[in-house]
Amino acid sequence: MGSAVDSTVTVKGWVHTLRLQSRVQFVVVRDHTGMVQVTHRRGGDGDRLDELLRGLTPESAVEITGKVVANPIVKLGGLEIVPERVEVVSAAEPGLPIDAGTGPEQRLNWRFLDLRRPERRLVFEVQTTVEQAMREVAAEEGCTELHTPKLMGTPSESGAEVFRVGYFDRTAYLAQSPQFYKQMAIAAGIDRVFEIGPVFRAEPSFTSRHATEFTGVDVELAWIDTVEDVMSFLERMLRRVLERVAERHAEQIEQHAGARVVVPELPFPRLTMAQATAKLRAAGWDQEGVREDLDPEGERLLCALVAEEYGHEFVFVTRFPASVRPFYHRRPADDPSVTDSFDLLWRGVEITTGAQREHRHGQLVAQAREKGMDASPEGPLGRYLDCFRYGMPPHGGFGLGLGRVLMLALGLPSIRDAVFLFRGPNRLEP
Amino acid sequence: MGSAVDSTVTVKGWVHTLRLQSRVQFVVVRDHTGMVQVTHRRGGDGDRLDELLRGLTPESAVEITGKVVANPIVKLGGLEIVPERVEVVSAAEPGLPIDAGTGPEQRLNWRFLDLRRPERRLVFEVQTTVEQAMREVAAEEGCTELHTPKLMGTPSESGAEVFRVGYFDRTAYLAQSPQFYKQMAIAAGIDRVFEIGPVFRAEPSFTSRHATEFTGVDVELAWIDTVEDVMSFLERMLRRVLERVAERHAEQIEQHAGARVVVPELPFPRLTMAQATAKLRAAGWDQEGVREDLDPEGERLLCALVAEEYGHEFVFVTRFPASVRPFYHRRPADDPSVTDSFDLLWRGVEITTGAQREHRHGQLVAQAREKGMDASPEGPLGRYLDCFRYGMPPHGGFGLGLGRVLMLALGLPSIRDAVFLFRGPNRLEP
Repeated sequence: MGSAVDSTVTVKGWVHTLRLQSRVQFVVVRDHTGMVQVTHRRGGDGDRLDELLRGLTPESAVEITGKVVANPIVKLGGLEIVPERVEVVSAAEPGLPIDAGTGPEQRLNWRFLDLRRPERRLVFEVQTTVEQAMREVAAEEGCTELHTPKLMGTPSESGAEVFRVGYFDRTAYLAQSPQFYKQMAIAAGIDRVFEIGPVFRAEPSFTSRHATEFTGVDVELAWIDTVEDVMSFLERMLRRVLERVAERHAEQIEQHAGARVVVPELPFPRLTMAQATAKLRAAGWDQEGVREDLDPEGERLLCALVAEEYGHEFVFVTRFPASVRPFYHRRPADDPSVTDSFDLLWRGVEITTGAQREHRHGQLVAQAREKGMDASPEGPLGRYLDCFRYGMPPHGGFGLGLGRVLMLALGLPSIRDAVFLFRGPNRLEP
Repeated sequence: MGSAVDSTVTVKGWVHTLRLQSRVQFVVVRDHTGMVQVTHRRGGDGDRLDELLRGLTPESAVEITGKVVANPIVKLGGLEIVPERVEVVSAAEPGLPIDAGTGPEQRLNWRFLDLRRPERRLVFEVQTTVEQAMREVAAEEGCTELHTPKLMGTPSESGAEVFRVGYFDRTAYLAQSPQFYKQMAIAAGIDRVFEIGPVFRAEPSFTSRHATEFTGVDVELAWIDTVEDVMSFLERMLRRVLERVAERHAEQIEQHAGARVVVPELPFPRLTMAQATAKLRAAGWDQEGVREDLDPEGERLLCALVAEEYGHEFVFVTRFPASVRPFYHRRPADDPSVTDSFDLLWRGVEITTGAQREHRHGQLVAQAREKGMDASPEGPLGRYLDCFRYGMPPHGGFGLGLGRVLMLALGLPSIRDAVFLFRGPNRLEP
């Protein structure tokens, strides 16, 4: 705005702070790009601006027109606006329902007011950049963008933790992931599938990283050689994401959230689950040796160990035991007790699950039965299994939680702060 | 592939057609980019390729490696592949459940097979381009990409035609549009909001343009002067969309769908609803003069009249009567019986509804009450109305149906062909 000195501008925004002194009135106006100080030297009787400014309430929406003046003692860029016209577009009621000291639940109740704080709104600027970078990579890599249905006729996967919907004279189910549909797209000859959309989990979890509705980023790739093709796609995508976030937001993230954006080196470190558990147990995790999967504590500790040993914030954990993975994960020929799968951990949290899928119909049916599932043509998996009967290429993919990436990128304490309007077991509002 | 003559290539795809003759065997292999002919001259005993090719079934997934040979009589680019290695990656069962003569419902049942036809898959290539162009414009115009919740604690808008979800010990509702949430984002100081996501309508409609779940493109813009700002944003976006579609897909759309891509001139013609109905009635529509809104016949006729008079495929109809618009549409000061709203019609079909919103709390409450709605703070609109109590800028936006745009761009007979997996009152599968 340096070049604007002496010009007349109109600022449209919210009353951030008001200081009405006997001789000078200061209004800091905030819009989505920043703040500016408006300074009015009070006149005598008939000073209409004085009257207007005295009637202002914090957070009112205003349009102020005035001359830009240089003033070195003003913190906001050394500039202020001397108002000529003040319009109260929409007055805020006096007495805001939240302030800086309000607790988290009440802040969520008044989310639109809480989001007016620039440090909270930053999440969505970063989100926009993150999605742009993801789509940029998806386009370069030849992905087709799809929108798979969220309403399903049969519950997906296990049927546990699925929401039921009254659907005319029957029941529908909300998709827990686009998994089956993106595989259907592969069967349809859509070579590489990309989707960003909502997924629903009827999980009564109250942790800082779970939500009943969240935004999933899903990719599925046909004609892969091994699961490594999926992992390298994912790490290329995340590197691009963090490059773009670093370019555009590193400073703000540092300033508002105190978090550092680190652009990761490729390739990310890779550990098999067996290697990871050995490392973890040596460091004191799960001394009884009973766990087949990582728990949150294991994820945190593993990331700490990897950071120390490799100097890297990411780690792929591969070859999870078949017992803890879904039936459709492919199992390597050399060891059918494990799967060609991976989780990606970042800064102590799992952000992605992926795998090569079993594309051979007979093997897939056998693996479903082994898990105790109904694999009959008339059963809930019938339509899914049909996709494997008429020529299905080898394929694999991943699902990534967008909110978790944002939470970690900005160092936020909870997923609640990383999404626009959080949904949890006790929260459907606003 | 012209430069590939004499090189060895590997083709990964599906067996499109098989012609096994006594001396020569032809296999046309199809992948997502096109088709190629594989030609094998049969050897004598011990010809392993011969055996493999004789065992092939249509639509099996194969990987074929061989030498590229020029052959001017081959239709597919004058090239064929002489195979050295054939791998059946995934054999199709003999006897496909659908063929070229199969009716629409059965085709939907086997959607993944139906989509293997390049002319059907084209929709999703165009969709990917359409969304890229929309996001390009959204980014240039400073939009923030949001994901608003699809699970709501109270039914949106009227509460009619909303799906109910069992949500732990209470009931949730599926969002019929992001309307209230994108306005909440405006109240949160997010200047311009952009979202592409699913919307749900529990509407028992069986027309060619209705679905119970579809993809909505939503935009909301703060600090607009008039609804004209919203309309000009929309027409800039659609022009870019059709420019990109013309660049990348015009030929294929012409070839596969027989439809022409026309890049529209700006601005689009604009008619008030009063002007539109006068024009329509002069042409024979609604002779009794009882309709306050356009019906499908009116939309088709109006587009025909506009095409004739203005040579334009689009037309904005503005100033719809308040009686046929929701309570939150702003009403112009000079005529409170109408609204600052618009529909956009293209090729005979309404694809967008938009409006300037009423941002004044008192006026909004009065308009809700006038429509017989409960506008009390404890009522279902309470949280929505709260957004207008603490400074709300003037704003407006639109919602556009992505499937309708694709249906019209490709000249498809039904929305069912314009979405990956259609959802209707009788259809939740596959």
